[in-house]
Amino acid sequence: MNQPSIDPAQLAEMGRYAEEIATEARQIALQWFRHPLAIDTKADESPVTIADREVEQALRRAIGRRYPGHGILGEEFGLDHTDAEFVWSIDPIDGTRSFISGNPLWGSLLALLHRGSPVFGLIDIPATGERWTGMQGRAATFGGQPCRTRDTATLDRAILYATAPEIFNAEEFRAFEKLTSSVYLRRYGGDCYSYGLLAAGHIDLVMEAGLQPYDYLALAPVITAAGGVITDWQGCPLHMGSGGQVLAAANPALHAQALERIVA
Amino acid sequence: MNQPSIDPAQLAEMGRYAEEIATEARQIALQWFRHPLAIDTKADESPVTIADREVEQALRRAIGRRYPGHGILGEEFGLDHTDAEFVWSIDPIDGTRSFISGNPLWGSLLALLHRGSPVFGLIDIPATGERWTGMQGRAATFGGQPCRTRDTATLDRAILYATAPEIFNAEEFRAFEKLTSSVYLRRYGGDCYSYGLLAAGHIDLVMEAGLQPYDYLALAPVITAAGGVITDWQGCPLHMGSGGQVLAAANPALHAQALERIVA
Repeated sequence: MNQPSIDPAQLAEMGRYAEEIATEARQIALQWFRHPLAIDTKADESPVTIADREVEQALRRAIGRRYPGHGILGEEFGLDHTDAEFVWSIDPIDGTRSFISGNPLWGSLLALLHRGSPVFGLIDIPATGERWTGMQGRAATFGGQPCRTRDTATLDRAILYATAPEIFNAEEFRAFEKLTSSVYLRRYGGDCYSYGLLAAGHIDLVMEAGLQPYDYLALAPVITAAGGVITDWQGCPLHMGSGGQVLAAANPALHAQALERIVA
Repeated sequence: MNQPSIDPAQLAEMGRYAEEIATEARQIALQWFRHPLAIDTKADESPVTIADREVEQALRRAIGRRYPGHGILGEEFGLDHTDAEFVWSIDPIDGTRSFISGNPLWGSLLALLHRGSPVFGLIDIPATGERWTGMQGRAATFGGQPCRTRDTATLDRAILYATAPEIFNAEEFRAFEKLTSSVYLRRYGGDCYSYGLLAAGHIDLVMEAGLQPYDYLALAPVITAAGGVITDWQGCPLHMGSGGQVLAAANPALHAQALERIVA
């Protein structure tokens, strides 16, 4: 992969800062998780809406303070200087359906892009206190320790995750079913947590569609730094303008087999 | 409901003992969760098989020591004196597919039956440290504090959980889809955790099929003590010989609406 070069010390410093501000954002999101207001799913201001906005605002403020020249792309407040050399991508609450149903497996996603390509990603799971990071040129981490994908060699031994059948349109679902029919086990439910399980060597494949850039940009560096492969359904690397179809695999051989299966 | 009478002090003592032995069993299960052996899903002895057996053995030993006259019904080691006045039901690892994929939302289930009807239930989630209990005549608890279901009044505002589409046969799935089409949100993935979310007031409905007695017996007292309703798909209370179809709802009105929808 032809990655643009960045000063590793500068990148490491930005990664440390990202971890710091994600820890602060955790507390904000947790204030609204399992909040009694969640009972009223038809309220104008649902807890997840408030949490989404407050977390993104906190992260935007913190990034602007330290790196005023960087751009920002966020779920709630849109684009800001995305032509800058460095751009941050923020998904304050990934897994809205988990969040509103009291399920702890939602996350906050933060990515750093350099000239359009993600070079650092962070998956934070506030409710369980778990965190994955991935940085270009370094091992991925889970809970601060290095983590790696596993070496499952064939589809018939692979565990496949996807968030829900509803994320696929009819044609996409047919492709998904082709892969499903070849694997050892398929499980729904996941959002960003699935990619963490993949990076830590517990599952082998994640196939999804309908994702937004702020959904997938943070995932790519984590999967890659852990030894996995993550692309769109055509096998191309993910960047700011990729479509929402994502295929992640524990290793290159398994990724190639899965890709062949879904285009067949 | 016509419940057989039990001495409340005796029942409370049995509930305390159940909590004590479930806490010991937690450590056994956690030793095997995310264990590297899990990589080899084709091994004769998968970590989940070992954990299943070791947890059930520990619980059976502990019950036999304190209550030698009680019967036991377990997933791994079958029936033992199930004609006794008191019978314990054990599901050492509920949510095998979560367990083998590193997903923390699996649980250990323990129920106490009196003359065939569940009077105490415990849902323990070792990986997150969460626990629900329900006892005849007392409020349900979550993390030791009283918990209650919520008062969602109509299906169109209800959040529905089910473990996976695969748990239903074709006819059952048609009934499930009828309910799905009436609710605010449906989410897959859950096992016993879904019933905990229902008892704690975060979701409104769980509809499942293919459950075994050791799967559902512990859930019933938790849901009931939290103010919810749990029956089979004909609306009958759950007991040792119920079929595997389960419908749980946050309150009687919602349960009636859901039942009407699926038999329609």
